[in-house]
Amino acid sequence: MPPPTPSSLAATSTLPPDWQEKCAKRKQSQLDSIPKEWIIELPPKERLNVMDIPRECGLLSALELEITETTDVQTLLDKLRLGEWSSVQVTTAFYKRAIIAQQLTNCLTEIFVERALSRAKELDDHLARTGTVVGPLHGLPISLKDQFVMKGLETIMGYAKWIGRVAESDCVLVEILNECGAVPFVRTNVPQTLMHGETHNHVFGRTLNPYNLAFTPGGSSGGEGALVAMKGSPLGVGTDIGGSLRIPSAFCGLYTLRPSYARLPYAGAMNALEGQESINSVLGPMTNSISGVKIFTKAILAKEPWRRDPLVLRKPWSESEYQLEAHGGGKQLCFAIMWDNGVVKPHPPLHRAMQMTKRALEAAGHVVIDWEPHRHLEIYKNAARGRETIFAADGGHDYLAECEGAEPLIQSMALLGHPTDADVHESTIPVLEEPLVRKLVGKPYHRSAWELWQLHKEKRDLRKSHLDHWEATVARTGTGRPVDAIISPAVAYTAVPHGHNTDSFYTTLCNALDLTSSMFPVTFVDPQLDDANSPHEFYNHEDEHIYQLYEADKFPGCPVALQLIGGTHEEEAVIRMTEIVAEALSLAAATT
Amino acid sequence: MPPPTPSSLAATSTLPPDWQEKCAKRKQSQLDSIPKEWIIELPPKERLNVMDIPRECGLLSALELEITETTDVQTLLDKLRLGEWSSVQVTTAFYKRAIIAQQLTNCLTEIFVERALSRAKELDDHLARTGTVVGPLHGLPISLKDQFVMKGLETIMGYAKWIGRVAESDCVLVEILNECGAVPFVRTNVPQTLMHGETHNHVFGRTLNPYNLAFTPGGSSGGEGALVAMKGSPLGVGTDIGGSLRIPSAFCGLYTLRPSYARLPYAGAMNALEGQESINSVLGPMTNSISGVKIFTKAILAKEPWRRDPLVLRKPWSESEYQLEAHGGGKQLCFAIMWDNGVVKPHPPLHRAMQMTKRALEAAGHVVIDWEPHRHLEIYKNAARGRETIFAADGGHDYLAECEGAEPLIQSMALLGHPTDADVHESTIPVLEEPLVRKLVGKPYHRSAWELWQLHKEKRDLRKSHLDHWEATVARTGTGRPVDAIISPAVAYTAVPHGHNTDSFYTTLCNALDLTSSMFPVTFVDPQLDDANSPHEFYNHEDEHIYQLYEADKFPGCPVALQLIGGTHEEEAVIRMTEIVAEALSLAAATT
Repeated sequence: MPPPTPSSLAATSTLPPDWQEKCAKRKQSQLDSIPKEWIIELPPKERLNVMDIPRECGLLSALELEITETTDVQTLLDKLRLGEWSSVQVTTAFYKRAIIAQQLTNCLTEIFVERALSRAKELDDHLARTGTVVGPLHGLPISLKDQFVMKGLETIMGYAKWIGRVAESDCVLVEILNECGAVPFVRTNVPQTLMHGETHNHVFGRTLNPYNLAFTPGGSSGGEGALVAMKGSPLGVGTDIGGSLRIPSAFCGLYTLRPSYARLPYAGAMNALEGQESINSVLGPMTNSISGVKIFTKAILAKEPWRRDPLVLRKPWSESEYQLEAHGGGKQLCFAIMWDNGVVKPHPPLHRAMQMTKRALEAAGHVVIDWEPHRHLEIYKNAARGRETIFAADGGHDYLAECEGAEPLIQSMALLGHPTDADVHESTIPVLEEPLVRKLVGKPYHRSAWELWQLHKEKRDLRKSHLDHWEATVARTGTGRPVDAIISPAVAYTAVPHGHNTDSFYTTLCNALDLTSSMFPVTFVDPQLDDANSPHEFYNHEDEHIYQLYEADKFPGCPVALQLIGGTHEEEAVIRMTEIVAEALSLAAATT
Repeated sequence: MPPPTPSSLAATSTLPPDWQEKCAKRKQSQLDSIPKEWIIELPPKERLNVMDIPRECGLLSALELEITETTDVQTLLDKLRLGEWSSVQVTTAFYKRAIIAQQLTNCLTEIFVERALSRAKELDDHLARTGTVVGPLHGLPISLKDQFVMKGLETIMGYAKWIGRVAESDCVLVEILNECGAVPFVRTNVPQTLMHGETHNHVFGRTLNPYNLAFTPGGSSGGEGALVAMKGSPLGVGTDIGGSLRIPSAFCGLYTLRPSYARLPYAGAMNALEGQESINSVLGPMTNSISGVKIFTKAILAKEPWRRDPLVLRKPWSESEYQLEAHGGGKQLCFAIMWDNGVVKPHPPLHRAMQMTKRALEAAGHVVIDWEPHRHLEIYKNAARGRETIFAADGGHDYLAECEGAEPLIQSMALLGHPTDADVHESTIPVLEEPLVRKLVGKPYHRSAWELWQLHKEKRDLRKSHLDHWEATVARTGTGRPVDAIISPAVAYTAVPHGHNTDSFYTTLCNALDLTSSMFPVTFVDPQLDDANSPHEFYNHEDEHIYQLYEADKFPGCPVALQLIGGTHEEEAVIRMTEIVAEALSLAAATT
């Protein structure tokens, strides 16, 4: 039975008249789940940077501020293990801060305070009774993107139709987190379809960037981005199919890891494009410390996830790979900087961040060379750009089927009014038409399975070509090895106004080639240092638009983060190299 | 651009009038490549078992017989390394025997004696000059299925259209084998399309089973099956997408390993259904000794194939997995026997082989329980049975496109005449119509990409369900672990007359679920011991047909081999457990 055509589904005449009411009702029930005493007075709407509100609003005690500002996850876990802080204390502190973040940025979906605190109490009791922790994440509150199914809760994932679907069991990730002693405590917002680099849907609304509410926190793991940036969670779990972990980490200044396909267990989680296996979505941590990335990854792998998720690689955490045995022990690494991928040129703050990273790494004794981009546009086109791509192989049928009879499909993330109340502060930056402003669904066009196979063939050949290109850098590194990792922007710009993060020119490379990658924060936009470049010869009209988008006075204070790219299945090595980069940057900052 | 419909391609009116001549010419050039002095006198056509002809025909010297009958690959490599036998001696001996096998079973495609001997001489010279071997396979002749591209040779893969396509470079496997010191020395026959469990095409013709020429050696790696069974190669490399390594190993009594997807490097090899990535074809060794399986796998992995083939898992050979650390050190394993998968009941010799294996394992101190089959028919239907499957998702377009304008598509492997000259010995077993006699292409029907995604979703859920079922056996094993491995038939019967191996009820399970599996020979059909069962309540009409197919007096002397099934990515453990089973069987044979 061939599927109905997208056009037959797109007809909005089939929408029930009360679809908006239904969404509003669910949103109200979310608001009702917030303890009244945690409601704060909102700042004036002219205040766009709300990062300091948690300190200012008076809801958090001194201890709660201390707890939530302990960004190093290892330190938090140590204090929990030693009983210095109880899990109830830590969970309460983060919950309160998460609720503050929610009121300012609209980052949450599911809120379940009692359940989380009762779980925290259980863990405290266990530790008191036995003197031992339940597992390596004992007592740690963890936030989860609105895909990670928990028994007894809805998973709405941005779709009106999914309201009321209560899960009967946990997804594998949640099972494992529970066994590790974690406290899943909130779920976080996503865009409808998950296939946008911003975060907005009809049920829970739009998530804002706490550094500038007029800006997007990115997406699709944008709820996590805003929440973790505000220190409303010590560690969140997001997913990434085209940049969805890295874009919010870039826009919110976080650490993350995009592991290779099937290294971490996705079984039982909800997803968009179900059954699409050409370029797999993966899950990873988002956090304010690289220690969080390592602890999370090690903890999950120690639970042998391949025994519960048949797609997961049987590849335990490798200490020798973490110690960079295949990279000369990490003593002298060779990094290659991708200043520009030849498709769109990064904004000045990204360039400065790469220069800072280069200097820091050289000062730490590493070699830094230039990366020569290789067929990026072809790789991008194969995966994600236009309708003859892997992501569009179903002609949008998956999205339309989820929206059918329930709500309109959101075609772009553009915002016409003020981010918080849609009446002032209209974006003055012109919205570019196709293809920069990506429309998810074009004319109805289903690819056949055979046509999809041809895209696979093309992708496989591109992967081989890119691998050979990388291996051939052995001639340029001077280390006797090919480049150990690439340092690159994840997005050509820092956080931008809502609706302007329309594409994924830098992140998709890693999804299409299945390259392990991480993000690390470097600095903040500084209009004094980050003057606009003079115009260059534009690669294409998107590149020109991105050039025009940069107006230094609009982006001050936005975080600037970079991506570190390693080989496929190099999670351990990428984590260690990210630590090395972070240490080098920290040392460089301390000595200037 | 949608592909042309299968029906438009299937029109045979577009065949060039000389397509048969073109094939015959290529076949003649193959014959011309055989050194005249290696042509033997053929036995009378009534003689169907030709296993002893290599000893009888007089072409091989005593030393050449000794070399070729050294089935233990480790012993061969030791003698090569110590210079006791030169690579030229070993390669010549196996080449002569391969040419004998070719004359009896038609197992080869590419024959290149001079090139192989010159390569062997290089290796001998290297050893003489340096005192060291080139690599772990130094001097060993290795045969390759007609997919493994070698520079300067054609890769015809059973397609008339591919005649004359000479490769400009080696595939990654051949690159690595060369670096390991191996001597690729022949390529072996396949069925047109690769998607049959027998071996016949219009260019090189039909491959016969040396145990009974009226029987098929299986397929699609059937050329390897016949060749290695006749000891015309110490080790061959085949591939498996639905049983293509295991079916010929079953019918020819060999060891093999079907590794998990992407553990060993396929890049640069030719294939059918290019771009089909739902159930991946994998490559593996076929050999007369389990030592060959281990040596081959270790040698390839030691070359870090992930640095040349981007799809290969970054998972080096793990000695601890080989030592069965995750299986209690292998001291007391629990095997589960799949007496019957509930879809088709195995023939009596298979049942006896399972009983022998059970007794041998119990005598060696292991636990043996019954396997409870779980959703096999659903798994099989999702992958391979009928037109609404993954393998048929392109409606046969791939096959038809390769045949278009060049030759007719071969729909079944049925044989109407004598296997060697098509005039006597007509098969008396009735050919059953659909679906048992599988037709590759039915009515034209292209699935859409979205429909293929739905099959993926179903497959993923089946994999999860099967894994949970397996893990739950922990309650029954008594070892504290789930079942360590399943012992099962690979095919419900031993070798059968040409055209009668129409389906893959037992092998496909491992391809669909990506379970690592091996084959090990157990015994031979013995009409005294293997009486036909009385009829049972048939599961379906195929089961009934398979029951009827068994006539004990027709299959005497055919090898009986079984499959050992481990988890995904358990190559090391499966190899070690296969060694344990082989040792137990050998001990049991010695003590009875």
